[in-house]
Amino acid sequence: MQSMTISALRAAYIAGELTPEKLIANIHERAEQFRDRNIWIHQLTIEELTPFIEGLAHKNIEDYPLWGIPFAIKDNIDLIGITTTAGCEEFKYTPEKSATVVANLINAGAIPIGKTNLDQFATGLNGTRSPFGACKNSFDKNYISGGSSSGSAVSVALGLATFSLGSDTAGSGRVPACFNNLVGLKPSRGLLSAAGMVPACKSLDCMSIFALSTEDANAVLSSAESFDEADEYSRKNPSANNTRYFGRQKLPLTLGIIDPSQLKFFGDENYQKAYADVIEKLETTEDITLVHVDYSPFDEVAKLLYEGPWVAERYLAAEELINTNPEAIFPVVRDIIAPGGEPKAHQLFSAQYKLQGFARTCKDQVNKFDALLMPTAGRLFTIEEMLAEPIKHNSELGFYTNFVNLLDLSAVAVPTSFTEKNLPFGITLIGDTFADRALLSIANYLETIFPTPEGTGKADKPRMELPAVATNKTVDVVVCGAHLEGLSLNWQLTERGGELIDSTTTSKSYRMYALAGGPPFRPGLIRDTENGEEIIVEVWRLPITEFGSFVAGIPAPLGIGKLELADGRWLPGFICEFSGIEGAEEITELGGWRSYMNTKSQ
Amino acid sequence: MQSMTISALRAAYIAGELTPEKLIANIHERAEQFRDRNIWIHQLTIEELTPFIEGLAHKNIEDYPLWGIPFAIKDNIDLIGITTTAGCEEFKYTPEKSATVVANLINAGAIPIGKTNLDQFATGLNGTRSPFGACKNSFDKNYISGGSSSGSAVSVALGLATFSLGSDTAGSGRVPACFNNLVGLKPSRGLLSAAGMVPACKSLDCMSIFALSTEDANAVLSSAESFDEADEYSRKNPSANNTRYFGRQKLPLTLGIIDPSQLKFFGDENYQKAYADVIEKLETTEDITLVHVDYSPFDEVAKLLYEGPWVAERYLAAEELINTNPEAIFPVVRDIIAPGGEPKAHQLFSAQYKLQGFARTCKDQVNKFDALLMPTAGRLFTIEEMLAEPIKHNSELGFYTNFVNLLDLSAVAVPTSFTEKNLPFGITLIGDTFADRALLSIANYLETIFPTPEGTGKADKPRMELPAVATNKTVDVVVCGAHLEGLSLNWQLTERGGELIDSTTTSKSYRMYALAGGPPFRPGLIRDTENGEEIIVEVWRLPITEFGSFVAGIPAPLGIGKLELADGRWLPGFICEFSGIEGAEEITELGGWRSYMNTKSQ
Repeated sequence: MQSMTISALRAAYIAGELTPEKLIANIHERAEQFRDRNIWIHQLTIEELTPFIEGLAHKNIEDYPLWGIPFAIKDNIDLIGITTTAGCEEFKYTPEKSATVVANLINAGAIPIGKTNLDQFATGLNGTRSPFGACKNSFDKNYISGGSSSGSAVSVALGLATFSLGSDTAGSGRVPACFNNLVGLKPSRGLLSAAGMVPACKSLDCMSIFALSTEDANAVLSSAESFDEADEYSRKNPSANNTRYFGRQKLPLTLGIIDPSQLKFFGDENYQKAYADVIEKLETTEDITLVHVDYSPFDEVAKLLYEGPWVAERYLAAEELINTNPEAIFPVVRDIIAPGGEPKAHQLFSAQYKLQGFARTCKDQVNKFDALLMPTAGRLFTIEEMLAEPIKHNSELGFYTNFVNLLDLSAVAVPTSFTEKNLPFGITLIGDTFADRALLSIANYLETIFPTPEGTGKADKPRMELPAVATNKTVDVVVCGAHLEGLSLNWQLTERGGELIDSTTTSKSYRMYALAGGPPFRPGLIRDTENGEEIIVEVWRLPITEFGSFVAGIPAPLGIGKLELADGRWLPGFICEFSGIEGAEEITELGGWRSYMNTKSQ
Repeated sequence: MQSMTISALRAAYIAGELTPEKLIANIHERAEQFRDRNIWIHQLTIEELTPFIEGLAHKNIEDYPLWGIPFAIKDNIDLIGITTTAGCEEFKYTPEKSATVVANLINAGAIPIGKTNLDQFATGLNGTRSPFGACKNSFDKNYISGGSSSGSAVSVALGLATFSLGSDTAGSGRVPACFNNLVGLKPSRGLLSAAGMVPACKSLDCMSIFALSTEDANAVLSSAESFDEADEYSRKNPSANNTRYFGRQKLPLTLGIIDPSQLKFFGDENYQKAYADVIEKLETTEDITLVHVDYSPFDEVAKLLYEGPWVAERYLAAEELINTNPEAIFPVVRDIIAPGGEPKAHQLFSAQYKLQGFARTCKDQVNKFDALLMPTAGRLFTIEEMLAEPIKHNSELGFYTNFVNLLDLSAVAVPTSFTEKNLPFGITLIGDTFADRALLSIANYLETIFPTPEGTGKADKPRMELPAVATNKTVDVVVCGAHLEGLSLNWQLTERGGELIDSTTTSKSYRMYALAGGPPFRPGLIRDTENGEEIIVEVWRLPITEFGSFVAGIPAPLGIGKLELADGRWLPGFICEFSGIEGAEEITELGGWRSYMNTKSQ
């Protein structure tokens, strides 16, 4: 079977081995074999697909990063002219335009092939809560697909789409990724526009991406993201989360993992073992350090979501139907949403205060590490098990996912392995707001440690050759003069949250001068590999966002370039224009600025 | 009478002309004259003051910025051992420790002299809603003081304290400043800890500062502010809002003012004229440009606060008393708070979505200017007028203030002038989150344009000699090589939101070299005032928070220093270490990098 990754399809198109028509025909043929999975609420007909395919004829594949790439859309997201049901026939409407993200993807050349089944109104993490039939796991029909973005995950896993759109409020973009051997990106809130998506909890909802690899997820995110006036929660993406940052930066990594005593697998020994194996493998990976984290504040936040008044948002989204035609709603979903009209505003404020309190503790934890790493789900249930205790098991499915959106975090679910029953298992990486590319980069590195096949296929998916990982939040700056600890300009570092991390020397390649003028008196370092000496310096760590104002305040002839340290590292630090040496006194032989200042004060 | 500003008191202490004991005795004496103002709920006795005064004996005034400075505390803020009433006898309790901010101020040497009258539970903007009596205006007893921080404002205006603490949810730290000729700083939410303050709307409350001048307000803020784990809404202050930034930076200023058709003065012709005079004066001030702004989105937000479900927070704060002893609450306050138990959580979510929508429009407006400038209040009512229509007139008082905290903005009320009736008038400057020091700096400049006396006194207050104004959010960077528009590294500027603002040349003081190595090919500029030429460069404007990562990515021998432009400006830009010239080709005579690249491509 044709590999369905973006790079494989593009290669086949460019080589002339494939056309979009052929691919679509093949997908339609194969989709027939999987009718019993209940993947689709509406699969686009050839007639409906024609405008999209014809549109590609005038577009050069080189200019369109998703040219001819088929994708599936969760049926709570609008595609122009096709009904949106949110899993409820009586709710359905026909949108006059596509959701912003769908339009962005189509503009990039992607082909929408169908609207997928879901837990009704995105209320669930399991995939059985749909009048269109329980969606079934891509690996074993007896098991749940996970939800609520069930059909979106299963379609990609079965090779019926290259990627798909889901939505994620409590974990709906991650749990199905775990159960179907996919990458599931739950982007930072507001990174993908929610305009044209039926709300579940509007203040928390994130549109999400299922893909066959981190490389594909990054490419889809890059085409999908845009600041959107039409979504009041849309936010501008800072440059450090730019698509260019995928895969950049250096190892080693420090990952926070849950204290073992706080893990829960709800009786799933296979998942328990799979996770233990992942941790064992990571512990023996040279570039990775694992540190135990107390999970209890995260768990408190998770409980707030399901036990607190956020259900009022779900009520609000379905209010009209609840009040006029409650019978139209799937029973278990109705039982959850209908009471959402009861909580009082002051109870919500009370819960929001609590959240605010936990949020600081949790964010501090998250920011101590390159990412948190945890199981995506604790147990993979059979459909029979799920239906027997639909509320209890659903809340168990969210044990590792519920807190993420309330805390405004980003997350990437990554497949790692298969259980003895040949069912997929995976972990989720969690980072701060707009850590999306950093997480994708770490996930990309994990793909090389935990290779899994492409979806349900047999072939290994292609791997990017990337050094990996993570965007820097801080910068280490070499200082040599009045910025040294205790000296007159040191406050410029400390007021910016600067921290002394190393006292060392430059390589034996610098000459030091006491510049004319002052106070403040200032030294200049001139690189001279032949006649230089080692000069005493300090390395200070600054938040990267504060570094710019520090640099902007430095007067000529000084500036920030790169300095070579005795251990061979090149770090940002103070350099000096050669013209500035005029009238300066050479003080190289003193070995550092403090010695010179001591001579002056005598 | 002794000037009560911080600098005047410190000078008197240092000169030995004054002692804290003498000052306190004098304050006690003068306070007797103003008993009918209903300023205090509890004025500290000599016995209660003794520990604070004795504590100063062991402290060197040079080390304590507020040594011996008397301050008043709104009686919804805790002072150890003294009852906190929030304006309600039946609510009162005796705190075992001081509010974090109060403790910070005492640690800086300040002396707490009393707990002040307020609109009960900080519910009001007028000062009449207190069982301890309506607090009266410091200039004319027939007029309201403004509220809810009424006694805190009046005490400072009358010279009974140097500064005071208020609280501000809808304008309680600004309206009384306007009515009593004071600076009223409503800091960014979370900059002053709310730990030890009785909540009004906990998600919106800000502790606030009344002072006689912007210099005093800045000094008090600097001692009062601290990140506080005990307050879940406390936030770390970024360095660009540091006390050192008060008064820095350059003119000119661009201020947004409300479109004249949208102004409201509620029948107060004196205030209308006072505001018109302020605008006329500003229009003729060379360094200031005024631009009209559409006020309607701000007004929509303001309405949300008073008509929306935020009253549920007030209910939550007084819930126990409302349910057990409603008669204990001041009638008009009870009528406002008691219904706060009714709104539903889904109505609150609905209002929060609305707020989120308006917030972007409003924030975009705020960030277009150095600040917004508007009347602090539209009308100064007599007490009689106020009591006749207590709800309507109170909401009129909040017309220009209600939106600020919901939008997470900072604000400074500044006195500007007096009406024909010799009643004070003032304006408010509004900026983004953590623009506190930038606003104080602009306010400091306005103090020189609109001199007013110190409180109700006759003497002009001292003026700082500061160049004024505002912290830079952007930095202009001079580029000369591959970062020029359209060249290979230009994306490093554009992805950071960079904007080309000038194409020009350096001063006639630089030589240009094509460095060895590449691609990317890179030039180096070497300053040479004797044999240099003018080199073509571009100036790009970057957000200051993005500049650091740009600098950190620049490889040796290049760096960012300061370059001299043809017009004499020195701006941050690319410099080159002299050692990097080895193996380079001098291309000065080509006049710029594009010419060189053209020769290469031929």
